[in-house]
Amino acid sequence: MIKIAVLGYGTVGSGVVEVIETNKTDINKKAGEDLAVKYILDLRDFPGDPYEKKVVHDFDVILQDEEVKIICETMGGATYAYDYTKKALLAGKSVCTSNKELVAAHGPELLRLARENHCNYLFEASVGGGIPIIRPLNYSLTAEHIDGITGILNGTTNYILTKMDRDGADFEDVLKEAQEKGYAERNPEADVEGYDACRKIAILSSLMTGKSVNYEDIYTEGITKITALDFKYAGQMNKSVKLLAFSQDTEDGFFAMVAPFMISKDHPLYIVRDVFNAVYVHGNMLGDSMYYGRGAGKLPTASAVVSDVVDCARHQGKTIMCFWDEEQVKVADIGLAKRKFFVRVSADKREAAMAAFGALAEINVGIAEEFAFMTQTMSEKEFTENIEKLGGCINRIRIMA
Amino acid sequence: MIKIAVLGYGTVGSGVVEVIETNKTDINKKAGEDLAVKYILDLRDFPGDPYEKKVVHDFDVILQDEEVKIICETMGGATYAYDYTKKALLAGKSVCTSNKELVAAHGPELLRLARENHCNYLFEASVGGGIPIIRPLNYSLTAEHIDGITGILNGTTNYILTKMDRDGADFEDVLKEAQEKGYAERNPEADVEGYDACRKIAILSSLMTGKSVNYEDIYTEGITKITALDFKYAGQMNKSVKLLAFSQDTEDGFFAMVAPFMISKDHPLYIVRDVFNAVYVHGNMLGDSMYYGRGAGKLPTASAVVSDVVDCARHQGKTIMCFWDEEQVKVADIGLAKRKFFVRVSADKREAAMAAFGALAEINVGIAEEFAFMTQTMSEKEFTENIEKLGGCINRIRIMA
Repeated sequence: MIKIAVLGYGTVGSGVVEVIETNKTDINKKAGEDLAVKYILDLRDFPGDPYEKKVVHDFDVILQDEEVKIICETMGGATYAYDYTKKALLAGKSVCTSNKELVAAHGPELLRLARENHCNYLFEASVGGGIPIIRPLNYSLTAEHIDGITGILNGTTNYILTKMDRDGADFEDVLKEAQEKGYAERNPEADVEGYDACRKIAILSSLMTGKSVNYEDIYTEGITKITALDFKYAGQMNKSVKLLAFSQDTEDGFFAMVAPFMISKDHPLYIVRDVFNAVYVHGNMLGDSMYYGRGAGKLPTASAVVSDVVDCARHQGKTIMCFWDEEQVKVADIGLAKRKFFVRVSADKREAAMAAFGALAEINVGIAEEFAFMTQTMSEKEFTENIEKLGGCINRIRIMA
Repeated sequence: MIKIAVLGYGTVGSGVVEVIETNKTDINKKAGEDLAVKYILDLRDFPGDPYEKKVVHDFDVILQDEEVKIICETMGGATYAYDYTKKALLAGKSVCTSNKELVAAHGPELLRLARENHCNYLFEASVGGGIPIIRPLNYSLTAEHIDGITGILNGTTNYILTKMDRDGADFEDVLKEAQEKGYAERNPEADVEGYDACRKIAILSSLMTGKSVNYEDIYTEGITKITALDFKYAGQMNKSVKLLAFSQDTEDGFFAMVAPFMISKDHPLYIVRDVFNAVYVHGNMLGDSMYYGRGAGKLPTASAVVSDVVDCARHQGKTIMCFWDEEQVKVADIGLAKRKFFVRVSADKREAAMAAFGALAEINVGIAEEFAFMTQTMSEKEFTENIEKLGGCINRIRIMA
């Protein structure tokens, strides 16, 4: 019998308890031992809850109980969660987390503490919710040199963009509806500005390189400027708009970015709709592979946390391989990145745009006031200079090759 | 330094050697030790090949060399490969294989031998080529109760069907072209009749249930009867035709089948084009997830074999968890399975079809000689009886819900 503590009895924490209860036969078989939740740490009480008596308010109770071998950290944030995680690992207790903020900020340090104390710090649920992606990167694609990862890593923005595409609706209206349905937070900034996706691609990029990619070095742009009309143009080009988080290890340097991109409707990432997420990985032997599923939600996320618990149960006293050193990866200036761009300018700038960009392909959806076009491949820097020459544009969206 | 032997220097075997050489820095780091190919078993000699001197013709040389810890079985077939695998495992040497035929026929016995001899029998490459799917099922989805797996598991048939859909071409013409391009064998039966997909879904179904699903119990139907006109009808219904291999654990029993199905163009499996494969998995907590990539080819398949080698290197003397017991799963009579069907009958049977099937939806692509329709949901048995009443049909294709 392995005793577990759950830190935080919110959405994911209560999901962890539910998954362990619902699938106990399968899970105990795979863990090789029975799992039992002994404590739930929360500031609140939960009168009437079947786990009411397991709720404690003091982390030290958990820390000092030698029976507790595995801790599920589903609190979020990088203050208390950081403190508790360090103390747990120092005490030789494994920690399984869904906390991308903490993993992105302190992953390599916590992994080092786990190694030094012969336990594990696992974070399958921190990226892509229930989609197995951390383990495939760490244990499956071990014969590959991975040089590119592109993800749809935020369910809220993907839901909004899918709705905008399907219904021709504008951002603000769909955001409001998403908030009413609980798919978006009342303060949606972390999602719609791309900050959440940024932390997640920082984690994946670190695993891809085996070093640390600082999320603060990743250029991040949200979806708040995308309009219904942009989708009309995209449709005309057989494309849609998705918030992509990607990193690429190229001859010109290591690039990482979060931004809305136009992608072809023939691309596998196009079918990632609504709150689904996917991670598209390129390796030098395998080529492209993709991992798709529910990127958020109580039970999918909890399922990933519990899969980590099973892994910890099977590796007691042993640290599972994970290469993520503290050495920083130098992220290249995105000004050097080359791609095509979709651009909308006012109709009176048609001649100037053609002069500035040379070869371009006009996209016409019958809006007389605008001149819209797709550029040739050029660097971000050159593109920005050209747009400055024009005195700005109505909107511009990067195009995924 | 871990010494490896490769059995069979054909496409996959030579790929294994190439992957180990090309990515040695990444692979050795992940294996925790340097890997080196010591022997290559083949009937042929390879004068001028850089590995010429490692080629041996006698398996006993490998078996008796205590330095060899891991054997890659890339011979195929279930005779010599079976004999060599058993001998290797009995000698405590781990075996990594791409041989779906052998895994489907003798998986649980070979896994037991591995357990008894403290080594491993791993087969990531046997299903989905380079796509990580065996490991995600065994190590990642451990908190799930998996109740359904649907795969596009054969690249040759998927290439043919994709071409037929795209170009409006007929089966025989596309098969011929695929043979010329090397995407189909000169004797294409194993692929086009679904036998290859059948073995692969038997393996996945066994891992899903933890018991043995005998591939001989799986109803298997190929793609040779699919015509260009069927795709025209499918297009009219916003669908396409894919060869699906699936198993479902339902209240009515355990169903497994390989057959061409019409699927909606909105389904994630629709974007699996050409020689790509994908596996769509349903779990009770996570819901749907999908694993997509190259299902065949020298380097992708070899990459999966080498990922198994890395796993063996990291678990020397330990058997990695894999639940696949010898106990047989009772596969339910497909007559009981319920679904909708697409049917084409000659125009003179219109009234009789409407009488036999009751409610149906006509599909019209302007072929006066035919009456085509989609049935309501019904059992396979009931459907077959109705078709018999009509004295047969021109063609019928199952529809995926």
